[in-house]
Amino acid sequence: MKYPTGVKKNHQKEVYHGNRGMALEDDINTTNEYYLQNNIAVIHKKPTPITIKKVDYPSRLEAVIREAYFKIPSTTDYNGIYKGKYIDFEAKETRHSYFPLANIHKHQIEHLKKIIKHGGIGFIIVRFSALSETYYLGANELFTFLENSTRKSIPKEYFSEYGHLLKEKYSPRLDYLAIIDKIYFEGE
Amino acid sequence: MKYPTGVKKNHQKEVYHGNRGMALEDDINTTNEYYLQNNIAVIHKKPTPITIKKVDYPSRLEAVIREAYFKIPSTTDYNGIYKGKYIDFEAKETRHSYFPLANIHKHQIEHLKKIIKHGGIGFIIVRFSALSETYYLGANELFTFLENSTRKSIPKEYFSEYGHLLKEKYSPRLDYLAIIDKIYFEGE
Repeated sequence: MKYPTGVKKNHQKEVYHGNRGMALEDDINTTNEYYLQNNIAVIHKKPTPITIKKVDYPSRLEAVIREAYFKIPSTTDYNGIYKGKYIDFEAKETRHSYFPLANIHKHQIEHLKKIIKHGGIGFIIVRFSALSETYYLGANELFTFLENSTRKSIPKEYFSEYGHLLKEKYSPRLDYLAIIDKIYFEGE
Repeated sequence: MKYPTGVKKNHQKEVYHGNRGMALEDDINTTNEYYLQNNIAVIHKKPTPITIKKVDYPSRLEAVIREAYFKIPSTTDYNGIYKGKYIDFEAKETRHSYFPLANIHKHQIEHLKKIIKHGGIGFIIVRFSALSETYYLGANELFTFLENSTRKSIPKEYFSEYGHLLKEKYSPRLDYLAIIDKIYFEGE
């Protein structure tokens, strides 16, 4: 089975915790935990989708998966609720100075389009590791680029111009909801 | 590792497809697929949460999970968006004429409480297999029972009185959004 983009990172998080590629995911999970503990929002990362083929039962109460395969995700990795609004996003890291579109599956783009259509808040969070810069890019700004460009990657400049830089703080680590407040709840 | 309630069903769906215990999950997945295809709502089942311990790489593009364990879910199984509203629910089957509360984890109840607190629509869908009756029970009605009873199970009568019977149709198989329309969007 072909190896879905991003999945390797997901399982490596489990196997070798805290490896460099997982820094963004760790930051977002820490941030979501902060939001949860402080009753700000309920946003979770979805488990990695897998297909289980073989399970052993050493005992009636134990189950060990002995053969399973990674599935290509049909949705984004994160969703939840904030101020009554449905939140949905994907987070990716790249060491390039541009964001390769191969990092996001077509059906994840289609998923984000449906979310926006149904009145949800959709976006992507992209970290340019080599530059230690992390950006929030609204789904509509992502769609605009895809509809008006034939490029296979989004230059970092597009993020700095049409997205929002996410400054890393102590806590919450990556306060992306502050951006959502600015865009959707300003003046409330 | 202790075997989390409900998880066995989840993996069995993958291993022995369509076994009796999975009938409700299949009905809900079919219904959600109908909602998705007809642009009615975007509601997905979350993947079964697992902890991966060992992965083999027969080739650079292949990955086979060789050792993994089921994790107790920290949220409900289903969430998504409908008419701009965040939707969140858990679905369970029982062969008893009552619903054993052991079928729902405490943290899933806590999760549903947070969802309601943040303005989402939360509920449970329970099928009494032996009677072929499936009910929608709003999260608040669930909380009310838990706060006013010391019982370890909810009698079916509570579902018929405070919940809503979900009639099975050809398509959509289990139209639970019709109940949500009645409760939340009547007259819109």
